[in-house]
Amino acid sequence: MSDIRLFDYWRSSASYRVRIALNLAGLDYETVPVDLLDRAHKSPEHLERNPQGLVPVLDIDGQRLTQSLAMVEYIDETRKAGFLPADPAERARVRALAYAVAVDVHPVCNLGVVAHVANLAPGDTVREDWMRHFIAPGLAAFEKLLAGFPPARFCAGDAPGLADICLIPQLYNAHRWGVSLDDFPRIRAVEAACAQHPAFDAAKPTKPE
Amino acid sequence: MSDIRLFDYWRSSASYRVRIALNLAGLDYETVPVDLLDRAHKSPEHLERNPQGLVPVLDIDGQRLTQSLAMVEYIDETRKAGFLPADPAERARVRALAYAVAVDVHPVCNLGVVAHVANLAPGDTVREDWMRHFIAPGLAAFEKLLAGFPPARFCAGDAPGLADICLIPQLYNAHRWGVSLDDFPRIRAVEAACAQHPAFDAAKPTKPE
Repeated sequence: MSDIRLFDYWRSSASYRVRIALNLAGLDYETVPVDLLDRAHKSPEHLERNPQGLVPVLDIDGQRLTQSLAMVEYIDETRKAGFLPADPAERARVRALAYAVAVDVHPVCNLGVVAHVANLAPGDTVREDWMRHFIAPGLAAFEKLLAGFPPARFCAGDAPGLADICLIPQLYNAHRWGVSLDDFPRIRAVEAACAQHPAFDAAKPTKPE
Repeated sequence: MSDIRLFDYWRSSASYRVRIALNLAGLDYETVPVDLLDRAHKSPEHLERNPQGLVPVLDIDGQRLTQSLAMVEYIDETRKAGFLPADPAERARVRALAYAVAVDVHPVCNLGVVAHVANLAPGDTVREDWMRHFIAPGLAAFEKLLAGFPPARFCAGDAPGLADICLIPQLYNAHRWGVSLDDFPRIRAVEAACAQHPAFDAAKPTKPE
């Protein structure tokens, strides 16, 4: 049994980020599924783990962590994983790229937010319309921000980092909700590079049996 | 004229965070207003500054930065501002606290998101109902997370840091939209401490004349 445990949900983008980061850092971990559709994230047991009632939760090094972005920074700081460049200005630019999806798109497309929208404005396509309305321009902005980085295998160089860790789960959602990547060649190239990387491949969402 | 320029909007929470951080670090800066109500953030001029069409944008040390959280980390890294503790696990916990509002509440209550909701579900109170629906439970979770930190003047100790920088602008919005803080004594105590701190006081939203 591993000492690192990730409480996650297979389709949660935030959980997906942390699986990628753990894999990139070469860390063994076990996952404990928290079924959002069963509302297991709002159970007393899970609220005890995280008062926010969200996944993922990460037990690592004898600590319990919440918030995927905080976990990724922790893994980077403690395992020297190289998710961020050394130069502060470069770090800020990579963080800004990551946050363009992780902060400005992902939370707005959270399951709880979209469920609330569907309550306010019922309709057959309200969920997918909402997703497309925010994911498509979010990725368009990401593509423009990427243009500020020299072309490379990954978002910000020849090794994967924070921006790739945040982008790939967002692209999973883009495909799920029918957002085309046709206009985003740089994003498609990064997606292709990540698809060939074992750390990303092993982190892919897989429905538990 | 200062070498540091912040393109901001007086009522933007993300801009407010950066004003606090610059003040805490003792940095002189000038602000350049970008009027969101005039859609100046979607003008070619501003999209040139930030393809996301968002405020704030920060010119500092000859670099142009976007994303408030990336700016705050940059200021911390380059000015040794002490916004985060030194220990990685403690850093992760403070970041998680900050992100509980900056990632999980703030983007969902963004002007553009709420405008889209109001289009989908017209109604006199749709904006304020939306704000309350997300701000109140977000602060309730923040209060529970705070309980994991020893009581202190600020969120995570006797000096203000990342969590306070993110909390105070969120509280400005809570007051604006009529969310009561009655059930959140720890949050109220931090708010009172920050109200007496000159860096927070000087950063308060003030409508340009």
